[in-house]
Amino acid sequence: MKDMLPNEIISKQQQLDEMVLEFKNYTANGATASYIPALKKADPNDLGICMISSEGTFIKSGDAEKSFTLQSISKVISFILACKTRGIPSVLEYVDVEPTGDAFNSIFRLELSHPGRPFNPMINAGAITVASLLPGDSPTKKIDSLLSFLEKMIGRKPMINEDVFLSEWKTANRNRSLAYWLKETGYLLCDVEEAMEVYLKLCSIEMTVSELAQIGLILARDGIHPYSSELLFSPEIASLTKTLMLTCGMYDYSGRFAAFVGIPAKSGVSGGILAAIPPSARVLNNRSTSWGIGLYGPAIDKHGNSTAGVKLLTYLSKEWNLRLL
Amino acid sequence: MKDMLPNEIISKQQQLDEMVLEFKNYTANGATASYIPALKKADPNDLGICMISSEGTFIKSGDAEKSFTLQSISKVISFILACKTRGIPSVLEYVDVEPTGDAFNSIFRLELSHPGRPFNPMINAGAITVASLLPGDSPTKKIDSLLSFLEKMIGRKPMINEDVFLSEWKTANRNRSLAYWLKETGYLLCDVEEAMEVYLKLCSIEMTVSELAQIGLILARDGIHPYSSELLFSPEIASLTKTLMLTCGMYDYSGRFAAFVGIPAKSGVSGGILAAIPPSARVLNNRSTSWGIGLYGPAIDKHGNSTAGVKLLTYLSKEWNLRLL
Amino acid sequence: MKDMLPNEIISKQQQLDEMVLEFKNYTANGATASYIPALKKADPNDLGICMISSEGTFIKSGDAEKSFTLQSISKVISFILACKTRGIPSVLEYVDVEPTGDAFNSIFRLELSHPGRPFNPMINAGAITVASLLPGDSPTKKIDSLLSFLEKMIGRKPMINEDVFLSEWKTANRNRSLAYWLKETGYLLCDVEEAMEVYLKLCSIEMTVSELAQIGLILARDGIHPYSSELLFSPEIASLTKTLMLTCGMYDYSGRFAAFVGIPAKSGVSGGILAAIPPSARVLNNRSTSWGIGLYGPAIDKHGNSTAGVKLLTYLSKEWNLRLL
Amino acid sequence: MKDMLPNEIISKQQQLDEMVLEFKNYTANGATASYIPALKKADPNDLGICMISSEGTFIKSGDAEKSFTLQSISKVISFILACKTRGIPSVLEYVDVEPTGDAFNSIFRLELSHPGRPFNPMINAGAITVASLLPGDSPTKKIDSLLSFLEKMIGRKPMINEDVFLSEWKTANRNRSLAYWLKETGYLLCDVEEAMEVYLKLCSIEMTVSELAQIGLILARDGIHPYSSELLFSPEIASLTKTLMLTCGMYDYSGRFAAFVGIPAKSGVSGGILAAIPPSARVLNNRSTSWGIGLYGPAIDKHGNSTAGVKLLTYLSKEWNLRLL
Repeated sequence: MKDMLPNEIISKQQQLDEMVLEFKNYTANGATASYIPALKKADPNDLGICMISSEGTFIKSGDAEKSFTLQSISKVISFILACKTRGIPSVLEYVDVEPTGDAFNSIFRLELSHPGRPFNPMINAGAITVASLLPGDSPTKKIDSLLSFLEKMIGRKPMINEDVFLSEWKTANRNRSLAYWLKETGYLLCDVEEAMEVYLKLCSIEMTVSELAQIGLILARDGIHPYSSELLFSPEIASLTKTLMLTCGMYDYSGRFAAFVGIPAKSGVSGGILAAIPPSARVLNNRSTSWGIGLYGPAIDKHGNSTAGVKLLTYLSKEWNLRLL
Repeated sequence: MKDMLPNEIISKQQQLDEMVLEFKNYTANGATASYIPALKKADPNDLGICMISSEGTFIKSGDAEKSFTLQSISKVISFILACKTRGIPSVLEYVDVEPTGDAFNSIFRLELSHPGRPFNPMINAGAITVASLLPGDSPTKKIDSLLSFLEKMIGRKPMINEDVFLSEWKTANRNRSLAYWLKETGYLLCDVEEAMEVYLKLCSIEMTVSELAQIGLILARDGIHPYSSELLFSPEIASLTKTLMLTCGMYDYSGRFAAFVGIPAKSGVSGGILAAIPPSARVLNNRSTSWGIGLYGPAIDKHGNSTAGVKLLTYLSKEWNLRLL
Repeated sequence: MKDMLPNEIISKQQQLDEMVLEFKNYTANGATASYIPALKKADPNDLGICMISSEGTFIKSGDAEKSFTLQSISKVISFILACKTRGIPSVLEYVDVEPTGDAFNSIFRLELSHPGRPFNPMINAGAITVASLLPGDSPTKKIDSLLSFLEKMIGRKPMINEDVFLSEWKTANRNRSLAYWLKETGYLLCDVEEAMEVYLKLCSIEMTVSELAQIGLILARDGIHPYSSELLFSPEIASLTKTLMLTCGMYDYSGRFAAFVGIPAKSGVSGGILAAIPPSARVLNNRSTSWGIGLYGPAIDKHGNSTAGVKLLTYLSKEWNLRLL
Repeated sequence: MKDMLPNEIISKQQQLDEMVLEFKNYTANGATASYIPALKKADPNDLGICMISSEGTFIKSGDAEKSFTLQSISKVISFILACKTRGIPSVLEYVDVEPTGDAFNSIFRLELSHPGRPFNPMINAGAITVASLLPGDSPTKKIDSLLSFLEKMIGRKPMINEDVFLSEWKTANRNRSLAYWLKETGYLLCDVEEAMEVYLKLCSIEMTVSELAQIGLILARDGIHPYSSELLFSPEIASLTKTLMLTCGMYDYSGRFAAFVGIPAKSGVSGGILAAIPPSARVLNNRSTSWGIGLYGPAIDKHGNSTAGVKLLTYLSKEWNLRLL
């Protein structure tokens, strides 16, 4: 934080506070996820954000202290861990890296394409496959391996919200439909119910925006922990993961998010968004700053993304010159 | 070119020569486009590349003197010109910016999605729509406006290869099918045959890899001409176009190209590839170098991309640290 | 007509009059085809029917004197003539006989199935293919061969409604889209514009319900003309055609029409319906009566079928024990 | 049997024997169902048939004594029983009656059509829905109600082949995928696993061709038992069921079977075929004969139909003038 002047920090804090205040209005355009009862109970008016830079800047604004479940954001972590333990080529045998333009819980492309490899790990089908690839020969071990991996990133083992998990477990018909299809075509390496337990428990991991921001920063820094400087995963994995976030991370709004916001991000239907912004030569002062962003705004749109979150990031990306291209 | 040492230029030239030599073998994995007779006649063993940097580096290697038609690479130019003359929001009313995972000449999504707006301007359906949005109330004027725009970029008005145009015109059944569908759903602003003439003549524009590289550099530099420093189109258009190249530019291999190569690029079934690489903070010496790349390798794969070209760019991107993420 | 008692005729006439009166109300549930301007002008309240039996019964009721265009009903005649001149196996190389459940002007299945043979001749794609198979090396000759064939059936060469034809010709974007796709995949044996002229002129042939009923009776009697006893086409062709009418004749309502009405029929978006009811052993008196039916009710539903016509035939089929199964 | 001369019976027996002998060769064109291990074990060379007429003719030929599982033929029985206990309109709220042209285990149309009602009860999705509609509040009761219903038809309670059931139960991934999808969209009235147990046990009911033929005759006679003359289900249900067999009974070959064979039939991947042929006025002697047919030929084609069975029925239908139209 040495080369950042205090008044600049204040200024960014103020800017962010003003943005959060303004874009909070957009929570009214969305609603909390109705198909998972435990998610429906969230306060739709919430909007909180945390940003951490490679230079030590730490800014929070809005409803930034609440815990929420990762939902699809966990797809990013699973993919990284699967690649780390199996190697990228082995993972890509089971899941491709093509965006589709289809809804996150779509199945028809699995039938229409042969042999039915899920198109990418950021949609449900692909993420269920990835859950089955995690290290450990039981759901408990698979989940624990992921929680341990997260512990290295955020300094504590996060909790699984059992209420949310049970709520999802009971209503996971469409995900089970996807899983059984994948089982049939050979793209699931464990039992369906085991894969479902892993997948849904990972969706139910609880975190705060600060913790998400820290994960974002590690991704932005190509796997290097900001404090310990430990390399938690390879730059190749970081690079591939960020690319997937850019091309497929925001459900069937991914192309527009890439076009209008331009940063690698992954959303969940809980209203969370994880973003990882690598250093850019575009910024005027040419400072090689990376950013990690965690955001929470549980009112979501038809695509499954936080309404206020997308608006806030669109504005922020432009104002602070964060976009990649 | 002032801050680039001569021996470094030589070195890059040598590196590139070696790569071209090595990856030329991959031309054997592809074949020239069979469905357009005039393209089939190209020499499948050709592989040429030109790279121009913002610092004045100019490197050519391989079969770099041949002229070839732009084919789908023209989609990039049309989109830029349509946005420049109509404004981005007006263009996006007629074409979306979502990748699809579908083949370049696919139609089923136009029927299955309502109201049938083409998903992005990098596939045939979207590009035919964009052709109808170009300035000018006749095919001749639309084409001329695009050629004049190209003249500003490359210093000469390029020629249209009439043989290729006629060959495509006679075999454009599938494109006409797309165009009539678009006409029915209101996503074509002129007559079908006029749109076809414009679209196919733009596909038939002839250029060299050096000229493509120059266009790539202008895109990489957000619309600024490298010599005149004239702003030919806005940074917003450049940014949006490069994002589309990254998410949808390489047909239904786009996701994998983004993942494994990681640079904004657009290919054509003639075997041409245009790439635009903005300055990056990732490079070790932190120099803010932009690159424009033009490539030609007419043996293409099942996706429609130059087989040797994709291999060469994959290697080059890694070796020279060109990827965005 | 010898073994039919006069009072039974009167009775059937009265029954039909009452039905027409009652089911005319259902015209209010539909609307005239809006996408063809010349069809939109029809009186939506019209409902007329004619029934002719193999025993000479001839009953008309309602608005039974109006001429209207065949539209998709012409698909039946084209298919018969193509089979008659080329032989069934040769025709089936170009068009299959599978129902699809898709809308009449759907295209996606042509892309998703390989090699893209249209699924049946009762939907637009298949009928456009069949139009190209008709005898004659020019549109005029193809059309004339079909009009001459019709003359043998109804005793006069019917007229083509040029207004309707021109109206359809100008708005045939979706049909042209289908035709160009078929051309690309090899399922069109003449030029697209020639096929369009033939197809749309056949759609624009004008007839009355009496004439339709006579054609229906010929089909019901396996190709034998009711008065001349001339065999106009083979029983095999009659059989295949009636089967196609039963499985695919009422657009994407065909399955329900077969289930709830149970007679071979073909509708057009002009509101016409042609039905052919072969002799049945089901009727109590075991009389081997065949029926031909012509119906006209231009207010159509979302599937493209006459709203009042479907209701009337559903009731009539039940009351008069006409269903096959 | 009174008005049938003995030598005519002999003649039909001889004819059938000759046909079976000839068409047995076509078993070589198919293979036993590979995806259900217990079915794979059947003798692929088997071909047997039984025909029973309303006049008492009873003919068997070939391998006609073997028991085999109903597989998809059970879909017919379930549908009849569901309609009998709930009424047709109530059943049709959950399953439509439209043919699709899709494979029997296809899912994409459930996603693409809204709200996702299965298109007909003769494909897996629709039949799984129907299984959930059967009377009884447990799988055991549902299955027992169907076995009791079958007992009324064939005079004994058939057995469930537990080996086949277990084999299918373990490999039912794709059916479970369909079932979970149906559960999500509200088209399954019980738990998925309960529906699967019912559905797969019904598929595993064992019968002989004679018993199938008897069921076929009951269907042909509109629900009337040939010996007791008891009405087992209404003519409306019989009529609807036979129509569905005609339009959708032979998987994605249904349209061609209707066109080339022309009789209501339902096949199973065990190689069984059930056919129900109502009295016809077409036969020369005008005798109102109904036929029930049971067939077994376990070598199946890519559609899932007995290869030799389809060939035999095609020939038989033509020779004996059995087709409806």
